Amino acid sequence: MKRAIQIGLLGLGTVGGSVVKIVQENAANISQKVGLPLKISRVLVRNKEKQRTVDTGDAIVTTDINDILADPAIDIIVEVMGGEQPAKEYILQALNAGKHVVTANKDVIAKYGRELFTAAEDNHVDLLFEASVGGGIPIIRPLKQCLAANQITEVMGIVNGTTNYMLTKMMNEKMSYADVLAEAQAKGYAEADPTADVGGWDAARKIAILSSIAFSSRVTLDDVYVEGITNISVEDIEYARELGYVIKLVAVAKDSEHGIEVRVHPAFIPNSHPLAGVSDVFNAIYVKGHAVGEAMFYGRGAGGLPTASAVTADIIDVARDIKHNTSSRILCTCFENKPLCPVGKTELPYYIRLLVEDKPGVFAAIAGAFGAQQVSLHSVIQKRKINNCAEIVLITYPVSNDNIKLAMNTLDGMSVVTKVRSVIRVEAEEIA
Amino acid sequence: MKRAIQIGLLGLGTVGGSVVKIVQENAANISQKVGLPLKISRVLVRNKEKQRTVDTGDAIVTTDINDILADPAIDIIVEVMGGEQPAKEYILQALNAGKHVVTANKDVIAKYGRELFTAAEDNHVDLLFEASVGGGIPIIRPLKQCLAANQITEVMGIVNGTTNYMLTKMMNEKMSYADVLAEAQAKGYAEADPTADVGGWDAARKIAILSSIAFSSRVTLDDVYVEGITNISVEDIEYARELGYVIKLVAVAKDSEHGIEVRVHPAFIPNSHPLAGVSDVFNAIYVKGHAVGEAMFYGRGAGGLPTASAVTADIIDVARDIKHNTSSRILCTCFENKPLCPVGKTELPYYIRLLVEDKPGVFAAIAGAFGAQQVSLHSVIQKRKINNCAEIVLITYPVSNDNIKLAMNTLDGMSVVTKVRSVIRVEAEEIA
Repeated sequence: MKRAIQIGLLGLGTVGGSVVKIVQENAANISQKVGLPLKISRVLVRNKEKQRTVDTGDAIVTTDINDILADPAIDIIVEVMGGEQPAKEYILQALNAGKHVVTANKDVIAKYGRELFTAAEDNHVDLLFEASVGGGIPIIRPLKQCLAANQITEVMGIVNGTTNYMLTKMMNEKMSYADVLAEAQAKGYAEADPTADVGGWDAARKIAILSSIAFSSRVTLDDVYVEGITNISVEDIEYARELGYVIKLVAVAKDSEHGIEVRVHPAFIPNSHPLAGVSDVFNAIYVKGHAVGEAMFYGRGAGGLPTASAVTADIIDVARDIKHNTSSRILCTCFENKPLCPVGKTELPYYIRLLVEDKPGVFAAIAGAFGAQQVSLHSVIQKRKINNCAEIVLITYPVSNDNIKLAMNTLDGMSVVTKVRSVIRVEAEEIA
Repeated sequence: MKRAIQIGLLGLGTVGGSVVKIVQENAANISQKVGLPLKISRVLVRNKEKQRTVDTGDAIVTTDINDILADPAIDIIVEVMGGEQPAKEYILQALNAGKHVVTANKDVIAKYGRELFTAAEDNHVDLLFEASVGGGIPIIRPLKQCLAANQITEVMGIVNGTTNYMLTKMMNEKMSYADVLAEAQAKGYAEADPTADVGGWDAARKIAILSSIAFSSRVTLDDVYVEGITNISVEDIEYARELGYVIKLVAVAKDSEHGIEVRVHPAFIPNSHPLAGVSDVFNAIYVKGHAVGEAMFYGRGAGGLPTASAVTADIIDVARDIKHNTSSRILCTCFENKPLCPVGKTELPYYIRLLVEDKPGVFAAIAGAFGAQQVSLHSVIQKRKINNCAEIVLITYPVSNDNIKLAMNTLDGMSVVTKVRSVIRVEAEEIA
């Protein structure tokens, strides 16, 4: 008779430490929920000498993964080290050693999902990863289980807290991109090298994971079109506000007629959309399904305790499986092989800001260049004069990315166009 | 070898018909997810002769529950008849016949939860009820699984679409309560007898269910303090707007020092709160946990397809259990027995609107009456003159319901107070 569910914890950083804390503090409640107590038996760290604030009790702390993999008493390996390697290798070894695995690792799941789920299936073990997207927000299980009856047509998320904090600050305090980035770095919200966040790569990994589940078809990081927020200016945010929008870094997955669109980029979102009110470091994932209609999941997308909330929930779920002698109830659900839609074929309205010469006939020339590429203009605002130039802001009707690029190339080469300032997609808007 | 998971469907109304539709339309996808096809084998209806738009294929339609209970091929009974009886009796008989049960029935779960979960446990079968709260919004499974590692301190929901539609209309179009109710009835959003919605009873059943899960302690309908929206006027909604609030019918459960508070009532919600933007027929449930922090779940809380989305998700979950030879992984989690907090001891700020005589010394008399009951005033607005009276609007500091009642009784009996117009709780506000 089993006395406890035994856990091997890989990593004792912010998330790992919070998992230890939650498992200790809620021991009685979790034990009731599972029917057996949880016990963190072994912990893998890089440096045993490092001073830590978390008390791992009588857990054996080691720097050798084999100490954990070879321990037959360990039921679940919890990977919260982060990074691609050696995390991926450890997860694979754990699965092949017949251990259930819980991971918070978006890098690994977005890139090696197929291989790891196959290993889990072959070894009849669980592989759960709720914390890999949206931190503490329940989204993986809701998509895999609660919305399993739906034909999902769209997933749109604000899934990077750093950039959402930055864009919110730029909007509310009219701070420049450079200033707000410096502040986010000072507060610890952004890394010294902020590329993964501001370049959209963190969000790209998350939307790869979400779209794989939503469309039952494997999407990996390489399939995602990615644009970051580095070119977003306070002027664009101000125009957005005037026009009834906010600018957000969105991660979008759509099941369209040309295939699955998966992309990360800044976008104008109308104020009436549920995602528009998601501010600061908060994350939210908005889902459209043929039966459920619209649904949204909101919360803290990062941080030690929120992430550990999701990791520990997965641990409890695996423990319930162990207690009930079952496993692999829900593994990979990518049993379809849907084509991807090339980004050039994706159709959306665009917001465009141009600096042009302020003289007669210029607007006609610009309109002609748009028209030549089948770009129809929905609304045009000529707003400010800057030196001798006029600033023209316009929103197009939906047009393919191929065509908007051709039009912008033409405009860029026109002598009357001083500068193409901004080209930003408009999402979730009915312009037709 | 099992060829299909067989379902007995009780009820072929809006929800039942939508379940049939989803199971048919998504047959291939669901079959892949489960590993076996689903088959609706038998359907219970009240009237076999009734014309229906839904095609039940080769399912055997019957008016006798025993035809379904006695069929050994039936694995899952899906109860979507609604109402307390005979639904509760049928569910109990199904569990005792060794059938798994999926139900959308809040009335039954809020009242007979304990008995039914015990029966499910005794018979080693599943009893799932995701659709009983929030329609298509995933909330039961997120609370039971995804947030299982949290000490939940608060659940606050907008869980009744009819009243949220009415309050939104009253706010946006300044329509009176009576007019908006008539319109909601004409549109089919409100019943001919609207008591269950406008009286708060529908929301009360839902918060009883949610708080039982959140606090691991059984709460039934009788434990819920209930106040409806019938006394809410456009004037109060206007004052709320001026003060930076919206009025919502909220269902609240809090784990406070005096015990579990469970209540349904209209409340002022600050505009900055995530629930404030939940409009029209949409529902949302906001949850606070010690690890996850804040989370919110948003979507359509009613309607055939959204509700059927949740019902069919439960069916898929049970089918996965059957396929994996397991059951009862997660049943009743009410293993604690926490005391309830009497409503008199609940402490909140209050919004109060009074009509008083417009003469010197009146305000001092009123302030004295509040002070005598330990009610401190946070802000006071004297706004309009109506005939010879003055309208005073004020917001108190947090005060117990017992004290506010005593104060209001005193005021009501004072000769200078013409009328106590409104007394409305203020939620989610830091006034201290």
